[in-house]
Amino acid sequence: MESMTFVLFGATGDLAKRKIFPALYNLYLDQKIPKPISVIGLGRREISDQEFQKYVEQSLRSFSRQEAFDQEIIGPFLEAFRYSVLDAGNLEDFKKLENIVSQREKELNLPENRMFYLSVAPEYFSVIANHIKESGLGTTKGWKRLIIEKPFGHDLKSARELNSNLSKAFKEDEIYRIDHYLGKSMIQSLESLAFANPVLQTLLNNKHIANVQITASETVGVEERAGYYDKSGAIRDMFQNHMLQILMMTAMNMPKSISPDEIRKEKRKVMESVRPLKKEGVRQDVVRAQYKAGKINGEPVISYINEPGIKETSENDTFIAARLWIDNPFWEGVPFYIRTGKRMAAKSTRIVIEFKKTSKKEKAERLNPNLLIIEISPNENVSLLINSRNPISGKIEPAKISLFTEQMDIPEAYERLIYDAFRGDSTFFAHWKEVELSWKWVQPILEAFEENLAPLHYYLAGSTGPEAVHSLLREDGFHWWLDEDDVTEDRLESLSEDLLAQ
Amino acid sequence: MESMTFVLFGATGDLAKRKIFPALYNLYLDQKIPKPISVIGLGRREISDQEFQKYVEQSLRSFSRQEAFDQEIIGPFLEAFRYSVLDAGNLEDFKKLENIVSQREKELNLPENRMFYLSVAPEYFSVIANHIKESGLGTTKGWKRLIIEKPFGHDLKSARELNSNLSKAFKEDEIYRIDHYLGKSMIQSLESLAFANPVLQTLLNNKHIANVQITASETVGVEERAGYYDKSGAIRDMFQNHMLQILMMTAMNMPKSISPDEIRKEKRKVMESVRPLKKEGVRQDVVRAQYKAGKINGEPVISYINEPGIKETSENDTFIAARLWIDNPFWEGVPFYIRTGKRMAAKSTRIVIEFKKTSKKEKAERLNPNLLIIEISPNENVSLLINSRNPISGKIEPAKISLFTEQMDIPEAYERLIYDAFRGDSTFFAHWKEVELSWKWVQPILEAFEENLAPLHYYLAGSTGPEAVHSLLREDGFHWWLDEDDVTEDRLESLSEDLLAQ
Repeated sequence: MESMTFVLFGATGDLAKRKIFPALYNLYLDQKIPKPISVIGLGRREISDQEFQKYVEQSLRSFSRQEAFDQEIIGPFLEAFRYSVLDAGNLEDFKKLENIVSQREKELNLPENRMFYLSVAPEYFSVIANHIKESGLGTTKGWKRLIIEKPFGHDLKSARELNSNLSKAFKEDEIYRIDHYLGKSMIQSLESLAFANPVLQTLLNNKHIANVQITASETVGVEERAGYYDKSGAIRDMFQNHMLQILMMTAMNMPKSISPDEIRKEKRKVMESVRPLKKEGVRQDVVRAQYKAGKINGEPVISYINEPGIKETSENDTFIAARLWIDNPFWEGVPFYIRTGKRMAAKSTRIVIEFKKTSKKEKAERLNPNLLIIEISPNENVSLLINSRNPISGKIEPAKISLFTEQMDIPEAYERLIYDAFRGDSTFFAHWKEVELSWKWVQPILEAFEENLAPLHYYLAGSTGPEAVHSLLREDGFHWWLDEDDVTEDRLESLSEDLLAQ
Repeated sequence: MESMTFVLFGATGDLAKRKIFPALYNLYLDQKIPKPISVIGLGRREISDQEFQKYVEQSLRSFSRQEAFDQEIIGPFLEAFRYSVLDAGNLEDFKKLENIVSQREKELNLPENRMFYLSVAPEYFSVIANHIKESGLGTTKGWKRLIIEKPFGHDLKSARELNSNLSKAFKEDEIYRIDHYLGKSMIQSLESLAFANPVLQTLLNNKHIANVQITASETVGVEERAGYYDKSGAIRDMFQNHMLQILMMTAMNMPKSISPDEIRKEKRKVMESVRPLKKEGVRQDVVRAQYKAGKINGEPVISYINEPGIKETSENDTFIAARLWIDNPFWEGVPFYIRTGKRMAAKSTRIVIEFKKTSKKEKAERLNPNLLIIEISPNENVSLLINSRNPISGKIEPAKISLFTEQMDIPEAYERLIYDAFRGDSTFFAHWKEVELSWKWVQPILEAFEENLAPLHYYLAGSTGPEAVHSLLREDGFHWWLDEDDVTEDRLESLSEDLLAQ
């Protein structure tokens, strides 16, 4: 890992405090950070280097995964941090910054490797990238890298504009687009699970699979992001990025080698094969909905339109579900159902793969289908629901077999992703093509919503979504698995019994 | 379940005491026994009904799985037991027995359903069957059933003679041949596992499987059975019956319905497809061996030829292994390795199914193959060894996913089997055709041993068998999985790490 300067825009912001500083510190504790390193924090507030270091230390004490705060450990880490005030719109500030960066490079005898992390509102992405170029900050003898995080545009057109702007200052392979779902342990495991296991390779295709269900449900509401969220909705906030990324990771074929390029090529192929929607057809395959007042864990919660900062007339979607078809030889004929929403019954991100019932007898006996269940959060687990003979009753009953990952102290998504960026490994970052294809697929949906071609459904807070999301599957003879409650062992068992009893 | 008379020959013997009485009692406690029932114990000793009931009670207190000995529970159970002295060679005794049975039938108002359990040495099977017929005991208005247990003959010829004798008194569907391995919970689960799970149906064939390994290793030596064992050897004591039964259960195809006839038909088909050996070829595919002195669990144990009752010149086999090929479209090209022995490193009966490595990359990375592990005893479990990404190191490592059967208080093999016999369900009993085909397959091996066409190998007590059993697999590019120690979770994990490190 080469030494570098880590230039952090938005160093006094929320993401830096909660995620980025703690990630850097844990990488430091795990010896996964370049040595020496120069970290330059930037913000609009006027604070001294000492005040900044104090601020960083406080963030670590509040949010670090590992707790190790002895002075001889934390001291050298903080010593790498400098602060500079910066107005993103002012080119002169970038020239000053260039001086500071260069001076630290000389002091620490660093190569001119510069990583720019834009932890700022998206409207600043273009101007900062431009000023990095204009100021000479980006003209280095070493490498330069740019880390940004969604939203990457608001629709296909604005995403293309943004990318065109960034491209003037950074090449595609210098841009690391964070989608923090790609930093999650189980998402990263998807590719190696199939890659390393012939039994799964054999099973994961339309010969054996009836349907795939991807769920990301939250119990929280709009929280403090009303302004942003009411303009974005679940479609832009979750679906276009995280959900379609999970889809790509789930449905991609095994690449010839596990290189970043190969993997991202395979992901693009998936997205290119997703059957496009016409805006007139959106109402058949997409369900949008908004939550009404309800109860979560016994506590009453208010409706979306009564949330602070939301207008009573808002028709924003807090829930999106869609049925997708991947028109390639592996997935032809297998529906992928995707669903995400706020204020739902349980917090759970998971993939449920339902296998076909091949034998006629099996149908006759109303056995459960086999399920491969990949739990991404809050638990991380892979399990297979099979049918097993109860040794006492002799009856065939569903049993869950789990790849039990002990609850290890696993690095957080940001640790993994920043570490990958340090090493220049772009496997788990979103390539522009993925982003563009996702927006392209989503665009007719945005237009259909705009033109009111698809109804806005409602669901009770604390439910599993509107009735329409259940009839979406019922049309195809399926239903959502593991619904109604959290995916706990107990719940699954009693659920399975119910299903068997049907 | 119809009421009946249960006529037990050998009622004062060891099997009755340890297994049959306790099985009957546990079935009684679980309400799986016909009511009313008449039990008539027979033996050479002169004891009264009261003494017999006392004797039965003592056996229950020593060997019953469930402990429930209140007088109001155990009293009515024992009340069903009567005893009669009988000399198997004396027809008159059978006529007296007929009177007793009939009288009890009248007393208890029982239909003339009679189950004859021959818990006696095999040399008495024919004469008892004949006397049952001659005495009129077997001429009933209801049904009659015969339960016998191995050995069913000593070779193909004697097995056919025995069967011919039994056939004069009982029809094939009246004969229940116990192979107590077929009573084991996991063996019974094999058929439903594949039947009820399309994912397993898909995988269990020569397209996906590299080889199948069946092991039944014991740590005990010859114990008190020197006279019998030295004439039988592992080939007759274990291989011809239990091991080939496990083979049939593992390799059979899914029948059209899970009826006893269909299942036994599929088992026969397997045995008919096993490629026959010529006695000259035995040395290539069969390993016979005998244990020498060694250590088990740190304790020294003596060699076979020094065991009490064994001659120093004995060349008896205490270990047998074989490579078998099933020449049908499902298993063509997949070697089945079978191994059983006494005084081995660990007590374990298990089936390990090794999957093919399909991808070239995988070989290059020296990943473990996937394994399906079916543990039959002492633990009962089904698990899949897959490769998984370590969320901390990011490396791909083997992980075991288990169908975790909680250690339930599972009925013993004899309880299951006697219960099945009560109900007339012969699914898990050995059909004559299975027995005959097994002997037929084994016959050239017996002859090769007789004529010394295959060498007698030696292995140290406490080892995993002679070197020859390892080279048997090495020839084909394989090795025995989970060897060297008991199949414990810990052991498996460290073993897998070693394998990965190779």
